[in-house]
Amino acid sequence: MDRIYLDNNATTIVDPSVKDAMEPFYCQMYGNPNSLHTFGTEVHPYMRIAIDRLYNCINANDNDNIIINGCATEGNNTIIKGIFFNYLEKRTDKKHFITTQVEHPSIANAFKAIERLGAEVTYLPVNNEGIVDIDILKKYLDPDKTALVSIMWANNETGLIFPIKELAGYCKEKGVLFHTDAVQAIGKIDVDVNEIPVDFLTFSAHKFHGPKGVGGLYVKEGKKIEPLLSGGEQMGGSRAGTINVPSLIGMGLAIELAKKGLKFELTEIKRLRDKFENAIAEIPDIQIIGRNSLRTPNTVLASFKGVEGEAMIWDLNQNGIAASTGSACASESLEPNPTFVAIGINKELAHTGIRFSLSRFTKEEEIDYAINVIKNAVTRLRGISSDMKESMNSIIK
Amino acid sequence: MDRIYLDNNATTIVDPSVKDAMEPFYCQMYGNPNSLHTFGTEVHPYMRIAIDRLYNCINANDNDNIIINGCATEGNNTIIKGIFFNYLEKRTDKKHFITTQVEHPSIANAFKAIERLGAEVTYLPVNNEGIVDIDILKKYLDPDKTALVSIMWANNETGLIFPIKELAGYCKEKGVLFHTDAVQAIGKIDVDVNEIPVDFLTFSAHKFHGPKGVGGLYVKEGKKIEPLLSGGEQMGGSRAGTINVPSLIGMGLAIELAKKGLKFELTEIKRLRDKFENAIAEIPDIQIIGRNSLRTPNTVLASFKGVEGEAMIWDLNQNGIAASTGSACASESLEPNPTFVAIGINKELAHTGIRFSLSRFTKEEEIDYAINVIKNAVTRLRGISSDMKESMNSIIK
Repeated sequence: MDRIYLDNNATTIVDPSVKDAMEPFYCQMYGNPNSLHTFGTEVHPYMRIAIDRLYNCINANDNDNIIINGCATEGNNTIIKGIFFNYLEKRTDKKHFITTQVEHPSIANAFKAIERLGAEVTYLPVNNEGIVDIDILKKYLDPDKTALVSIMWANNETGLIFPIKELAGYCKEKGVLFHTDAVQAIGKIDVDVNEIPVDFLTFSAHKFHGPKGVGGLYVKEGKKIEPLLSGGEQMGGSRAGTINVPSLIGMGLAIELAKKGLKFELTEIKRLRDKFENAIAEIPDIQIIGRNSLRTPNTVLASFKGVEGEAMIWDLNQNGIAASTGSACASESLEPNPTFVAIGINKELAHTGIRFSLSRFTKEEEIDYAINVIKNAVTRLRGISSDMKESMNSIIK
Repeated sequence: MDRIYLDNNATTIVDPSVKDAMEPFYCQMYGNPNSLHTFGTEVHPYMRIAIDRLYNCINANDNDNIIINGCATEGNNTIIKGIFFNYLEKRTDKKHFITTQVEHPSIANAFKAIERLGAEVTYLPVNNEGIVDIDILKKYLDPDKTALVSIMWANNETGLIFPIKELAGYCKEKGVLFHTDAVQAIGKIDVDVNEIPVDFLTFSAHKFHGPKGVGGLYVKEGKKIEPLLSGGEQMGGSRAGTINVPSLIGMGLAIELAKKGLKFELTEIKRLRDKFENAIAEIPDIQIIGRNSLRTPNTVLASFKGVEGEAMIWDLNQNGIAASTGSACASESLEPNPTFVAIGINKELAHTGIRFSLSRFTKEEEIDYAINVIKNAVTRLRGISSDMKESMNSIIK
């Protein structure tokens, strides 16, 4: 068995057809699309196709705006800091922001940054199912003071899907701007900005088999944003910087493939995920988070009682399997995973949570192999742990 | 004659060997380098080589920091906005900034953005040679109030090289932070941060035959920056966002090739540029900006009296030659080019300036062909212009 990649919520393989589509834009059609000559203008039709694909796949209207940028971290920072800087410039009464305790670090730390500059930020807790419900939003939202609500569409660790339609709808009703980090939703579930009234939405190509270093920020018709990257007139002045043509082309094809693959995701990948989940659920003293809740079809977050997460990752890696103890963006930190702490379903989760995330490139035999490896690893690691306890006890005696 | 690309200050062809070096990191070694498993860790040695190349090529010290980001626009915004936000947070006395009237839009508009939030910005004029000299900096710099001086290393339009060693040295002496946008310097002239005392320096891969969508921000040992992209712990917390591995690998090789090619740049490309310049200088009523000043060896900025710049670009393009009326980042604007206005050597320059920029991929026969095309174009366009004047006169009579 070749090595097995079950960490698709961290990043994904670039679809080979996406790589091929990008290829001509490095050494042949390499012009700056803002240039007036043919080297610049010849890439426009390809960019147009890519941009149309983005609009189609999230069902944006022609008058909405999709800003091409460098990553979802940039998109998230653009919205959060942009709206706060707008407050700083105009000194309105709106310096209150609402988010959740389980957002990705690019949301959480952007809010921490504006808090240091005077913003007031409420971090909503999740309920015991791991999501934010509408009642808690109603409790904290103040239409006279709240400038922005930012709540993720699907959680990167648990895969839990938040009730965005309800949450965004309530904000719209109250006249408060609503942003969603849809990084973990696009390509896994249907994302339709025409049906769900979000004002801003971020996504990142490398989460749906596109290249790293490119993302998008959806801005609803009529909503203004302050550029985080000021400069040239690219993106109508909303985001400066030479357009990354090959990556935009790649992202366009990647989102189209992801959209076309949604049915496969919701049936076949879900079937593999469920097979995997049902098999490891037989291990004694295991807990699977959100098993009966609405989740992205590719994600499993499991806690193996008594098995340290990092030891498990190490053991799996020795057997060629890539999984994660949580967001790769926080993997250098020794702090307990804040999402796991916030969920608090199981106090052990912060130390024993392991995330497995599949993709359309995951094969059934890989799942079968992984199930066996995991079962053996848990037995072995629990054995070591219990041996350690015994010898500790004998030393104490 | 195949088409001829003389717009290398706007963007460059990706060196084919750079594209090849990036290739394995899309579909084989695609892991997130922050992940703990082999898919994540196996890319580290390649990243290390790329980062070492960046350090070597600008002669950074081991304790300096080079932050990998999305583009020079991001690097420029990070420094300018970061230092201002630091002022906003700490409310020191330092809210004065100094820059020039001829910076790239990513500098100029970042300063305009912080001005709207309360910063005081001085835009230094250039002297009649097109550069900022030390005397004017001395006049405006106030060590008690000036937080940052940001002056470009080489101008994108004229190729003129600024006296960065003197300017940065004076700022160091006065204890004021100094940043330089070195986008147009790297790969064209020697850039040595150990010799020239800059605190911050930005560069962009796509200006030296690397990929678009990746750049670097040099930060001198001991100098702190506030992240513009808050989030995960990438780049030691200085710049969040999943690292764009293939592009970093590409940028590393590209800068090494650029450094190795410096001698060729300063001899052979300069020879071609001078041949080109000497030939077009024979055209009557032409002015070449900075011809006797220190310039990057690949750039020519010429003004053909009575020939509208855009008409000239159009004519050249019809003959397969790509040149520019100025920064591609401002090419959608109908305003006169602010650099040309600031230089003010020739009032007509704002409407008649054409920039030609060569690279190591430029061939001698391309230069020969371009010379002929340009001579014919100028004659033809001046003919049309004089015919128009005559017919206007006959109508008036």
